[in-house]
Amino acid sequence: MSFDPSTLPDVSDLTVGILGGTGPQGRGLAYRFARAGQRVRIGSRSAERGSQTAAEIAAMPGVVSGLVNGNHVTGGDNAYASDSDVVIVAVPWEGHDDLLKSLAEKLTGKIVVDCVNPLGFDKQGPYVLPVPEGSAAQQAEALLPNSRVCAAFHHVSAVLLIDPEVAAMDLDVLVLGDDREAAAVVQALAGRIDGMRGLHAGRLRNAAQIEGLTANLIALNRRYKAHAGIRITDV
Amino acid sequence: MSFDPSTLPDVSDLTVGILGGTGPQGRGLAYRFARAGQRVRIGSRSAERGSQTAAEIAAMPGVVSGLVNGNHVTGGDNAYASDSDVVIVAVPWEGHDDLLKSLAEKLTGKIVVDCVNPLGFDKQGPYVLPVPEGSAAQQAEALLPNSRVCAAFHHVSAVLLIDPEVAAMDLDVLVLGDDREAAAVVQALAGRIDGMRGLHAGRLRNAAQIEGLTANLIALNRRYKAHAGIRITDV
Repeated sequence: MSFDPSTLPDVSDLTVGILGGTGPQGRGLAYRFARAGQRVRIGSRSAERGSQTAAEIAAMPGVVSGLVNGNHVTGGDNAYASDSDVVIVAVPWEGHDDLLKSLAEKLTGKIVVDCVNPLGFDKQGPYVLPVPEGSAAQQAEALLPNSRVCAAFHHVSAVLLIDPEVAAMDLDVLVLGDDREAAAVVQALAGRIDGMRGLHAGRLRNAAQIEGLTANLIALNRRYKAHAGIRITDV
Repeated sequence: MSFDPSTLPDVSDLTVGILGGTGPQGRGLAYRFARAGQRVRIGSRSAERGSQTAAEIAAMPGVVSGLVNGNHVTGGDNAYASDSDVVIVAVPWEGHDDLLKSLAEKLTGKIVVDCVNPLGFDKQGPYVLPVPEGSAAQQAEALLPNSRVCAAFHHVSAVLLIDPEVAAMDLDVLVLGDDREAAAVVQALAGRIDGMRGLHAGRLRNAAQIEGLTANLIALNRRYKAHAGIRITDV
């Protein structure tokens, strides 16, 4: 069948938690989900910074407040954010393993969406770091055997996400995952953000190149002064 | 600067050789370049099959003949195709190393464009094969130290390329290469095919994920009954 967003589940009532929600990527995704009317829990190493970022996002243009506890964007530490239906991992690659190990129990049964790109930078620009498990997503899968691990949101520009003037994100989100039901939830979540489509782009074993492609997008950004995203044609 | 195709060199007079030009990808690219008015040399292990494929392509709709030797699409063995300005490597991954080793001398000084995707297939679909050099393109670079190695044309659908009814290819070609001048020639060549843009997407060390992405496009094709390509947004 061709892509038909109407076949995806209704996810409007799900809570989205974001580990590392105070970083650029996490903050940007939090804003877009909040703007789409999703309940969002922002997590941070510091509960105070998590709460503060939540308050900042709740005050941004287009975010309608008052749904939960007087606000549908709330914040706390990463354990607080883990107490959500879908938990997005938006932390730096360094520390990715330790954080997930520490939250493994809390993340039991949850849909966990890894969007971490293991990249290094030197004088020649970005490059892909080797990962013993194959990819950040596969490392998450190994550390969280009782969670439903997917990978997605690798290529969304943090700059565009957080810019209130950007009405729609012009890109497709490639969702990886062996658990088709969990992947469909993540696809539907991507579709909640104006302009985005969530497409299933294969199993988790094919996540490494999606993470690595971020290095190429950074190279394109530098070369063409852009915030590059990708669209899949003929779908 | 933003992408400006007018800054790319004029490549209309270059001869394009295609190693493995009788396979689906090579044949499709040969047809599109011939249709764009480019001089094309099709190579094959068998000189006879190379010539035969050239005759078939020369007779296809939209190909204007008569420019060189009574035909601007000619064929022969892979050594014949190597005697071109730009040589595209469109052979199967198996045998990639042996073929390039055998042609190293003939390819001295040439722009060599690797478009090989080292993929395996099992019951769960496509996956990326490990390559000691990092990628097919880096293997080519190691085997051809006196050539100007780039990588490109990984994601073009062979089915769409060869279909005369498809007027324009709806995708961007990601060109990798450390030799910026050679990469610009390859970008310009991509731009000769209706619908395509050739974008510089980083150094050769970032080729592996571009090759691997083909596994995800195959997964997308199977899932959505498509011939998926990619477009870079905001460029």
